[in-house]
Amino acid sequence: MNSVIETILNHRSIRKFEEKLLADEQIKVLVESAQAASTSSYIQAYSIIGVKDKVKKKQLAELAGNQSYVAENGHFFVFCADLYRHQLISELHDKPSQPVLESTEKYMVAVIDATLAAQNAVLAAESMGLGAVYIGGLRNQLQEVSNILKTPKYVLPLFGVAVGYPAQKPDKKQRLPLEHVYHEDEYEQDKNVYIDQLKDYDDFISAYYHKRTGGQRSDTWTGQMADLLSRPARMYMKEFIEDKGFNKK
Amino acid sequence: MNSVIETILNHRSIRKFEEKLLADEQIKVLVESAQAASTSSYIQAYSIIGVKDKVKKKQLAELAGNQSYVAENGHFFVFCADLYRHQLISELHDKPSQPVLESTEKYMVAVIDATLAAQNAVLAAESMGLGAVYIGGLRNQLQEVSNILKTPKYVLPLFGVAVGYPAQKPDKKQRLPLEHVYHEDEYEQDKNVYIDQLKDYDDFISAYYHKRTGGQRSDTWTGQMADLLSRPARMYMKEFIEDKGFNKK
Repeated sequence: MNSVIETILNHRSIRKFEEKLLADEQIKVLVESAQAASTSSYIQAYSIIGVKDKVKKKQLAELAGNQSYVAENGHFFVFCADLYRHQLISELHDKPSQPVLESTEKYMVAVIDATLAAQNAVLAAESMGLGAVYIGGLRNQLQEVSNILKTPKYVLPLFGVAVGYPAQKPDKKQRLPLEHVYHEDEYEQDKNVYIDQLKDYDDFISAYYHKRTGGQRSDTWTGQMADLLSRPARMYMKEFIEDKGFNKK
Repeated sequence: MNSVIETILNHRSIRKFEEKLLADEQIKVLVESAQAASTSSYIQAYSIIGVKDKVKKKQLAELAGNQSYVAENGHFFVFCADLYRHQLISELHDKPSQPVLESTEKYMVAVIDATLAAQNAVLAAESMGLGAVYIGGLRNQLQEVSNILKTPKYVLPLFGVAVGYPAQKPDKKQRLPLEHVYHEDEYEQDKNVYIDQLKDYDDFISAYYHKRTGGQRSDTWTGQMADLLSRPARMYMKEFIEDKGFNKK
C-alpha cells in the first residue's frame, strides 16, 4: 500500500484541535491542492473562503449548531459553488448567460467542482499530519452564513472544512460492505439481496456500538437512517438556492 | 512536499489508455478508497457501478458524445447519487421518508457524498501509476445511461470515471490564480479586482495556447467560458432529476 492510499484509508473526521493556527504557507498548499482537482470543461465553478476572523468563526460555529471546532481549529475553509465570475464574464463579452447560468446542470457542475476541490484539500491536510472535518452544519442557516461571508448572487456556500492539529484520535467509522455500494455492469436488481446486506451491516454496527459503550448503546445503521429520514431538516434549501440564482431551469 | 501532495498537484486528465484491464484487486482498492471519504451524517448516499461489459461500455461511450476512452480503458466507474437504500430502510422501519428523501438538501448531500468518494478513487488510482478522467458527458443523455445500468428510482448517475494505464502525458492545465479563487474572511467585494484578475489570467492562458500551437490558437479563458455559457446544454436535467425523486422539495 502506498502512502496516498494509506492516507485515504486512514481518514477519520477530527473534531478537536490543538490551539495552533496554520501558517499561511500551509494554507497556500491546501488551496493549491484544491485547485489541482479536475473541473468540468475547465469551468472552475467554485471559490473558497478562508475564515481567520475570530468573531466570524464564532458566529459560524453557532450557526452550525454550536460546533465548537468550527471556531477552534487551525483554519476554517468554506467551499462555495460559484458562477459569479461566469456571470461577470458573460457581461464583459456581451454574450447571453441565460438559461445556462441558472440551470440545474450548471448547479450540479458547480457543486461537483467545489467538492472535488475540497476533498483534495482535506487529503493534502491529512498528509501533512493535520486533521479535518466537513461542516455540513453551515447549511442550517445559509442566509446568515452568506451575510457573514458577504457572498454575492451566484455564490452558494456548500460546507465548511475545519483543519488543524489533531487533539483526538477517534476510531474509524466502518462503511457499508463494499458489495453493497459497488455494483458490476448494472445496479443490483434484487431488492432482497440489498435488504440482506443491510441486515448484516446492522448486526455488525450494533455489535460495534455495544462493545465500545459497554452495552450502553446498540443502535443499528438502518435505525439511525430511518430516524434521520423521518426528521424534516433544511427544507428551506430549494427556495434559497433558487434565490441565489442556482438550480432554477 | 510529500507524495500525497505531489500526486494531487501532478494531476492531469488522461484520455488515452493502454489496452490493459485493471485487476479485480486494483478495483477493490479504488472502491475501498472511495468509501473511506467523509459522508454527511454517516448517510453514505451514493453507489458506484463498475462497467466491464464491452457492449455497455461502447454504448456509454457513444452517449457521452463519442468519447472513445469511455470504452477503451482499464475500468469504467459510474458514480451515482443514491437514496434508494434509504427509501427501502424507511419502509423496513415503517417510518416516513418524505419530504426529506426528495428534498433539495438531501440531493445536495448525495451529490457531495458521491463526489468526495470519486475524488478519493481518482487519487488512489493516480498514486498507483494509473490515469483517470471524469466523464461529465454521461449527463448528455441520462435516461439512456440509467436504462443501460438499470438504476432504479432514487439512484442518479452523476458522472463516469475512466481509469487505466496512461498512454499519454498531457500538459497540466493552469488554474485560475490562487487569489482569485481564495478569499479571506469575506468574498471579494470589488468587482474590478475580480475583473482585473480575469484579464491577467486571459493574457496568461492566451500566451500559453499561442506558444503550444505555434500561433494557431490564442483564445482566452473568459472567451471559452462566455461561449460555454451562451450554449444551452442538458436543459432537460431539472425535470429528469425530479422524475428520479431528487431535488423536488
